[in-house]
Amino acid sequence: MGKIICAGLGPGDPDLISVRADRALRTAAHVAYFRKAGRRGQARQIVQDLLPADAAEYPMEYPVTTEIPFDSLEYNDLLATFYDDWAARLEELAKDRDIVVLCEGDPFFYGSFMHLYVRLRGRVEIEVIPGIPGMTGCWNVTGTPVTWGDDVMSVLMGTLPESDLTRHMQGADALVIMKTGRNLPKIRSALARAGRLQDAWLIERGTMPGERVIRLQEVEDRDCPYFAIVMVHGQGRRPELQISGARISGAAQ
Amino acid sequence: MGKIICAGLGPGDPDLISVRADRALRTAAHVAYFRKAGRRGQARQIVQDLLPADAAEYPMEYPVTTEIPFDSLEYNDLLATFYDDWAARLEELAKDRDIVVLCEGDPFFYGSFMHLYVRLRGRVEIEVIPGIPGMTGCWNVTGTPVTWGDDVMSVLMGTLPESDLTRHMQGADALVIMKTGRNLPKIRSALARAGRLQDAWLIERGTMPGERVIRLQEVEDRDCPYFAIVMVHGQGRRPELQISGARISGAAQ
Ligand SMILES: C[S@@+](CC[C@H](N)C(=O)[O-])C[C@H]1O[C@@H](n2cnc3c(N)ncnc32)[C@H](O)[C@@H]1O
Ligand SMILES: C[S@@+](CC[C@H](N)C(=O)[O-])C[C@H]1O[C@@H](n2cnc3c(N)ncnc32)[C@H](O)[C@@H]1O
Repeated sequence: MGKIICAGLGPGDPDLISVRADRALRTAAHVAYFRKAGRRGQARQIVQDLLPADAAEYPMEYPVTTEIPFDSLEYNDLLATFYDDWAARLEELAKDRDIVVLCEGDPFFYGSFMHLYVRLRGRVEIEVIPGIPGMTGCWNVTGTPVTWGDDVMSVLMGTLPESDLTRHMQGADALVIMKTGRNLPKIRSALARAGRLQDAWLIERGTMPGERVIRLQEVEDRDCPYFAIVMVHGQGRRPELQISGARISGAAQ
Repeated sequence: MGKIICAGLGPGDPDLISVRADRALRTAAHVAYFRKAGRRGQARQIVQDLLPADAAEYPMEYPVTTEIPFDSLEYNDLLATFYDDWAARLEELAKDRDIVVLCEGDPFFYGSFMHLYVRLRGRVEIEVIPGIPGMTGCWNVTGTPVTWGDDVMSVLMGTLPESDLTRHMQGADALVIMKTGRNLPKIRSALARAGRLQDAWLIERGTMPGERVIRLQEVEDRDCPYFAIVMVHGQGRRPELQISGARISGAAQ
């Protein structure tokens, strides 16, 4: 009996993979990963120099990505069938071998693997190895801490309606907005309404080749890449030297 | 000229440290870390089997932890002086050697190192190695994905006033509440008001020896350990098989 090992790959730099996942990858004989049809796949790219040359590969190609609305019945059914089929195939393969499934960032944090996981648990042994989430790699490359004291941090998806985005942006101290891509104009507009635009950063391909860190206000409203996060850093409580109540702010920022 | 390398250690299991941080730790000659006076220190504990036996150690002992209110002027000044002093000392040490500073989880996410970082940047070369945040280790050990589709996730500190906690708990789908400890009764009460108590989990020492994962409702209102997180998983959109509009929920959860 084999098992399914989902290896969280972290934000993109192979050096940021955990010791446990690194070990699983270097000894993998069977490797499955999601990708857009006709693409190399980001997860596969990250492990290029780690996988044994003779590992058998199982690319799981999405039947659709952004071609039809993600909240339509058609999209739902296409994806459900896709996950059902791959769950059955992986279960069959795992009968007599271990399969390593690749996952960008952390597998349990908005990851595609979760759709296989809920179908397969109870049917086959599954080990999930956590990874550094993409957002953690992104705030690291901005060179500025993201949350202090009792800052509230909200993680939002760019796919949300603009009014929801605006409301949540007003309510939290630190913000992480994922699934940016073609949602960038909407995200920008919501940030402006919430009064947060001037503090927003865009991080494209954080810790990957082609990384870019730039103030959102300095970017044009073009389509941004899939691996891109918008972020506002928190400014919460931190011990600074006070002299009879006067805060010496130079000491802290 | 040496530099300061802050190594994010992840949630606790040494196997979840990144390859880069693992390398820095195994070759470290000088190691600094925070701890409560008279304690071993959690960060130091995690790297017990990684550090070279002859590494020089610099325990940075907090002058105060929970003995006086964290929002008092006295607390602020004690901590500010503590961070100022250690920043000066590390700067001096880094003149002719590399110093590895240990940090639980990810250094830029509510980490104590950030207080040294903002004092030292520009004065000495600093490399920060991201880590798997404690919360990521915690949701992994619950065995259930934390966020789906366009779930909103909010990260809250148990130190917040109860009314703020309640409001944020009502507004988000997935919840992570850190700095639990003696704030557990307040967190429980806020969750109850927000109607989320029945879905809340308490994760103590996630991925560490002594780990415990339990429904919050099944725990007594005693003081819980410092390394403890309360969590509510998101239940967002996921592709499930639909037959003429009727959702077959067994397929997804
Ligand atoms: C489907 S989510 C998967 C998240 C992943 N499981 C994680 O833990 O980061 C994909 C989104 O993550 C974000 N993302 C992940 N890694 C990133 C990186 N290195 N740089 C920029 N964005 C990243 C982007 O916003 C992208 O749209
Ligand atoms: C000052 S914060 C430091 C957070 C750290 N930098 C990180 O990335 O997780 C300390 C809080 O993190 C949470 N925490 C960190 N690691 C944990 C673990 N392994 N298990 C449970 N709670 C943890 C606890 O709520 C604790 O009060």
